[in-house]
Amino acid sequence: MHALHWNGQALQLHSAYPVPRVTEHTALVRMRLAGICSTDLQILKGYMGFSGIPGHEFVGEVVEGPSDLTGKRVVGEINFACGICEWCRQQLGRHCPNRRVMGILNADGSFADYVVVPVDNLHIVPDNVPDEAAVFTEPLAAAFAILEQIHFRPDAEVIVLGDGKLGLLCAQVLHFAGACVTVVGKHQRKLVLLQKLGLRTVALADWKPGLSDVVIEATGSTRGLQLAIAAVRPRGTLVLKSTVAQDHTLSLAPLVINEVTVIGSRCGPFPPALHALAQGSVAVTPLIDRVYPLAEGLAAVNHAAQPGALKVLLRTN
Amino acid sequence: MHALHWNGQALQLHSAYPVPRVTEHTALVRMRLAGICSTDLQILKGYMGFSGIPGHEFVGEVVEGPSDLTGKRVVGEINFACGICEWCRQQLGRHCPNRRVMGILNADGSFADYVVVPVDNLHIVPDNVPDEAAVFTEPLAAAFAILEQIHFRPDAEVIVLGDGKLGLLCAQVLHFAGACVTVVGKHQRKLVLLQKLGLRTVALADWKPGLSDVVIEATGSTRGLQLAIAAVRPRGTLVLKSTVAQDHTLSLAPLVINEVTVIGSRCGPFPPALHALAQGSVAVTPLIDRVYPLAEGLAAVNHAAQPGALKVLLRTN
Repeated sequence: MHALHWNGQALQLHSAYPVPRVTEHTALVRMRLAGICSTDLQILKGYMGFSGIPGHEFVGEVVEGPSDLTGKRVVGEINFACGICEWCRQQLGRHCPNRRVMGILNADGSFADYVVVPVDNLHIVPDNVPDEAAVFTEPLAAAFAILEQIHFRPDAEVIVLGDGKLGLLCAQVLHFAGACVTVVGKHQRKLVLLQKLGLRTVALADWKPGLSDVVIEATGSTRGLQLAIAAVRPRGTLVLKSTVAQDHTLSLAPLVINEVTVIGSRCGPFPPALHALAQGSVAVTPLIDRVYPLAEGLAAVNHAAQPGALKVLLRTN
Repeated sequence: MHALHWNGQALQLHSAYPVPRVTEHTALVRMRLAGICSTDLQILKGYMGFSGIPGHEFVGEVVEGPSDLTGKRVVGEINFACGICEWCRQQLGRHCPNRRVMGILNADGSFADYVVVPVDNLHIVPDNVPDEAAVFTEPLAAAFAILEQIHFRPDAEVIVLGDGKLGLLCAQVLHFAGACVTVVGKHQRKLVLLQKLGLRTVALADWKPGLSDVVIEATGSTRGLQLAIAAVRPRGTLVLKSTVAQDHTLSLAPLVINEVTVIGSRCGPFPPALHALAQGSVAVTPLIDRVYPLAEGLAAVNHAAQPGALKVLLRTN
C-alpha cells in the first residue's frame, strides 16, 4: 500500500508498504480521507520520539472485521487502551497508562491506504455527513472535551485565543453551547470566516485583554499562554487546548493571586462531535485549505506547515 | 509607636512612628502577636513594590472603633476591599480590583504596636484560643481555602509537597477533612512533628512521585512545581498554594496530555480556621520557632529567613 513513513529523521513516501494485519478485536480500515494536524507536524520535529506512519484524523471504510462494521464508513478514537487497567475500568481509556496512540505512540496512523484500529475505537459515520466533514470528527471531539470538562454559565464571556484549526473548532462548539465567544487571532482570512459563521472576532493587534470568565488557549505558543493568563478574571477558568512541546518561561504567580482554575484538555468524546456534524451545527468544511492525493503527501505536509495554513487533507484511492 | 518600616530598600525599626488614625468603618487594633510569613520575606526582596509597614498575620485587641468590638481580641482578613464593586457585591472582596492588602499593597501592616483595619475585616477570637494559636488564623484560613475550592473524595490520595509553614497547615487541614495525606519534605524535624500529629510523611530523597488524586504545591520553588506536575494522576488536581515571584521554566504539556486541573489558591475563609483552632482540631503552636519582642524585629526577620525556619512571631507591649 501507499504510506507516509517517518523513520525519526525523514518522512518518506512508500508505495509498497505492507498492508497491516487484523488481529483480535481490531478492524482493517481502508482510508478515504486523513487530516494533517499540528501534532503531526510536531511529531515530524521529534515530539514523542515516534517512528512509523503518522496521522490520527481519518474517515475510512471497514474492509475486514466484525460483520456489523464491515462495509461501514467509520471514524476512530486515537487512544488504543488496554481495556483492563484501573483507568479503562473507569471509562478513562484515553488515559490508560498502557495505551498506544494512533500515529503518535507505538501505533501506525492514518497517512496510508489502510490502518488497523481496535473495534472499540470505531464509530459509524451518519449517512448525511460527507467524508470532508467526517474527517474533522477527531479534532471536533477535542473541542467538545471542553464542554465535558467545564460548566458554562449561559452569559459566560469566553475568549478563544488563537485562530488555528483547533481554535476555530473550539470557538464554534462553545458558540453552539450558548457562550458569548470572542476569537482573538492574527489571520484576517480566518477571522472573516468566523464572522461569516456569526462569531465575534478581534485582531490580536487590537485586542486588550480584559477579565473574561473563560479563556481557551489554542495558540500553541508561549506568548499565547502569557496573554491567556492576563485575560482571565479572578476565579475564572483557563483551558489549555494546545500541547506546546517546548518549555515555557513564565510567572505562575497571577494564577495563585487570582485563584484561576487551569484545565488541561486533550482528546474528547466522538458521539457529540458526530451529532454536531450530522445536525450541521458546526461548519467544518470551510476550514479545508486543500486536498492532496496521498501520493503527494510530502507536498501536503509542507503545505500544512505553512504559517496560517488551515486544514490540509490527504485522499487515498 | 514601635514599627518595622520597609522603605523599598531597607527594613528599619522606628521607635516613634506615628500611631495610625481611625477613619470611618475602621478600628484601631493594638497588636499582641504578629507572624512573619514567606510573603513578607519576598516583599523585603521587592515583591509587589511595597513600601510601608509589612506584616499581615496578627492577633490584637481593638482599642478604638465600634463599641461591640472595643476591648475584644481580634484577627483580621488582609484584603481591604472597596465594598461597592462587582467583586465585592459577589462576596469576592478578596479579588476586589480596588483592594488594598495589609502589609502588601497600599496598606500598613502588623509589624507595629498599632494597625488600622476595616471593621468588616475583623473577627473576634474565641476565648479558649490563646494568642499563640490565634496568630495563625490567617495562614490557616489560606489552608482552608483548598476545601472551599475543591471537593475531596473520602479516599482521595493527597500529596502535600513542601514541609514549610503553609505545607504543615495545609496537610493538617486536609487530614482533618478526611483525605489520605502524605507530606513530602526535606526537613527531618518538621516531618517528625507531622508524624506526631498522625500524618504520613516521606523524605523528598526517598519519594517516588506516583499518581496522586490531588497534589498541593507548597514548596514555593520551581523544582517543586515540576515534581508536583509529575505526581498528579491523569484528570487529577494540582493546587498551587505558593506564590513564586520568579519566572518558571517548565513544560506544561503534561498538564494537557493528562488533562490535569490546576487551581491557584490564595487567601481563605477565617470562620472555619477560627472554628478549627477553638476545637483544637489543628495543632499550630508546635509550629512556633521563636517569639521575639518587636524591638528585636530585625533579628526576628533574619531568623525567619533561615532555611528550614518555622514560624517566627513578634510580640508587642
